[in-house]
Amino acid sequence: MDGSGCPPPKVFTLKDINKVLETSALQIIDSIAEGFVAYSKGECVVAPVIHLGGDEQPLKGGGDCCIKCGFLNDDDFFVVKIAPGSFAGNAQLGIPTNTGLMLVFSSRTGMLECILLDEGILTELRTAACGAIAARLLGPKTVRKIGIVGTGIQARYQVDMLQHVTPCREVVLWGRNQQHIEAMKSDLEAKGVGWKVTTTKDMKELASSCNLIVTVTTAREALLKSEDIQPGTHITCVGADGNGKQELDPTIFSLADLVVADSKKQCTSFGEISHGIHAKTISENKVMEFGELIASPTLHRKGMDDDRITVLDSAGVAVQDVQIAKMVFQSLTSLPRSKL
Amino acid sequence: MDGSGCPPPKVFTLKDINKVLETSALQIIDSIAEGFVAYSKGECVVAPVIHLGGDEQPLKGGGDCCIKCGFLNDDDFFVVKIAPGSFAGNAQLGIPTNTGLMLVFSSRTGMLECILLDEGILTELRTAACGAIAARLLGPKTVRKIGIVGTGIQARYQVDMLQHVTPCREVVLWGRNQQHIEAMKSDLEAKGVGWKVTTTKDMKELASSCNLIVTVTTAREALLKSEDIQPGTHITCVGADGNGKQELDPTIFSLADLVVADSKKQCTSFGEISHGIHAKTISENKVMEFGELIASPTLHRKGMDDDRITVLDSAGVAVQDVQIAKMVFQSLTSLPRSKL
Repeated sequence: MDGSGCPPPKVFTLKDINKVLETSALQIIDSIAEGFVAYSKGECVVAPVIHLGGDEQPLKGGGDCCIKCGFLNDDDFFVVKIAPGSFAGNAQLGIPTNTGLMLVFSSRTGMLECILLDEGILTELRTAACGAIAARLLGPKTVRKIGIVGTGIQARYQVDMLQHVTPCREVVLWGRNQQHIEAMKSDLEAKGVGWKVTTTKDMKELASSCNLIVTVTTAREALLKSEDIQPGTHITCVGADGNGKQELDPTIFSLADLVVADSKKQCTSFGEISHGIHAKTISENKVMEFGELIASPTLHRKGMDDDRITVLDSAGVAVQDVQIAKMVFQSLTSLPRSKL
Repeated sequence: MDGSGCPPPKVFTLKDINKVLETSALQIIDSIAEGFVAYSKGECVVAPVIHLGGDEQPLKGGGDCCIKCGFLNDDDFFVVKIAPGSFAGNAQLGIPTNTGLMLVFSSRTGMLECILLDEGILTELRTAACGAIAARLLGPKTVRKIGIVGTGIQARYQVDMLQHVTPCREVVLWGRNQQHIEAMKSDLEAKGVGWKVTTTKDMKELASSCNLIVTVTTAREALLKSEDIQPGTHITCVGADGNGKQELDPTIFSLADLVVADSKKQCTSFGEISHGIHAKTISENKVMEFGELIASPTLHRKGMDDDRITVLDSAGVAVQDVQIAKMVFQSLTSLPRSKL
């Protein structure tokens, strides 16, 4: 019983993973788009999410842990993600508040193929990839300026990913805290991508100058007002990933020509769209699912500058984790050993 | 974003884990008993189990994967177990049908402390430990012979664990397949523990000579008949861990003086006890939970040879995984490096 029958799984640290990520943004974007299509076609399995911790069953450090898993039908792999988060005391210890890992298993044998000790970075990237897919398909042909609402880590990843789908390098950054705004501005400008960042605390200013907007805050009331949105604007909302969270004035949905949910089931029960349904500014049957949009090129704005206002509401779906973990695993195992 | 803040988790293979296990059977038994007590007191959190695969959402290899997790209230660690199983094609490839791993996280920081690549062995042990706890508390003072019903891997682990809680070394082994019976007999006799194994295909013979019986089959109808059970016998049933599975004639519950469930909730919805409830040979309020029994020394048979017939129905509870993973992790990290 020495386990000699089992080949040991490969264990990759964030350092290994980062080597692959440097050059594979487009692959990530494509594989996640493919995942959304499978999700909307019902061609994948996403298990109910496990939540450990939280207010009712607290963990000692006050945080929580969320476990997501799934697979694409008839695929060679299934993926389990374990994401501990919200351990507020960690900052004092110099370790991240959110961490986590992803595990890739063979669907043929059940064997653990690899452990990706990504410390939560793949979740950031798969979330940001969603914004990039939306920008690619629904962003205006001529992006005047990119409006970023929020100054956290995910806001940075959203900007990072957008460089691959639009030539626009002008960012208008909105935040509440001047120090956070300045820190993010200098982080972006230091990336060598050519970002030109102006900052503001006035949302009207952001909305009037930007026709591609990403909201990435933990807000619990509307930040972006409908009267400020310009024709031809696309808005991606990634902040409202739980009950009570909100970033958009729900009246925006009455203006919008196209409203998309990464998961209809999820976004109609919480998230921006749920506020719209509650406010009767949109009905459920007007919401299109992201995978359906991706698979319907006639609905994309690509190559046109039309006047449509479009909104993507994204709270995150496990199929994104499945796709990014598989992609990174396959890239890492095809690398020559000397590169690791 | 190089993850320098996160200390890397320790990764232990089955070879490492086996070194600890050689000497720690009693510690395992004690820690799992402690887990059951916490479970029955409601002092632990066990999340709903995730099942991937199976008939409706098949994985390519036809197997499944079960994810269990939980923690003891106010404890320093939480544990996630991922157990792929039933990959029938694996035998041909020379790899195990069931595999798996356990992950130990800090409840204070959410950081992954260690990965136990146990290949499913810790699940076998924690299940066998349950039988040992039952034998210790409910087994007769003088065990005449140990009756083992079943010839699979878990049947071997049950015998292994029993050596630590009873001096009896006589085993009567029942199986359907002569080759499997012989193989298990010679495996047990080769262990150097002094097991004397007689084999039978006649359950009456087993029941009439043994006053400590463990049933460990995948049977779907009663194997053990009530008329064959001798006074003063304890029966542990570990086979009926899912819908439709059954090893005991439900009439046994009318004879039994004490009927114990590892989890009342679980065993009354499937497992032996559910068949008894259906056959009206036991009512739910007569079922005691294992943790409650463990915490009630006056109910133990220890030190006495009474005539009571007692039954433990065990389908497995995640708190067992939590306890064994923590124990192994703590033992491994307190070992000097040279021992690994």
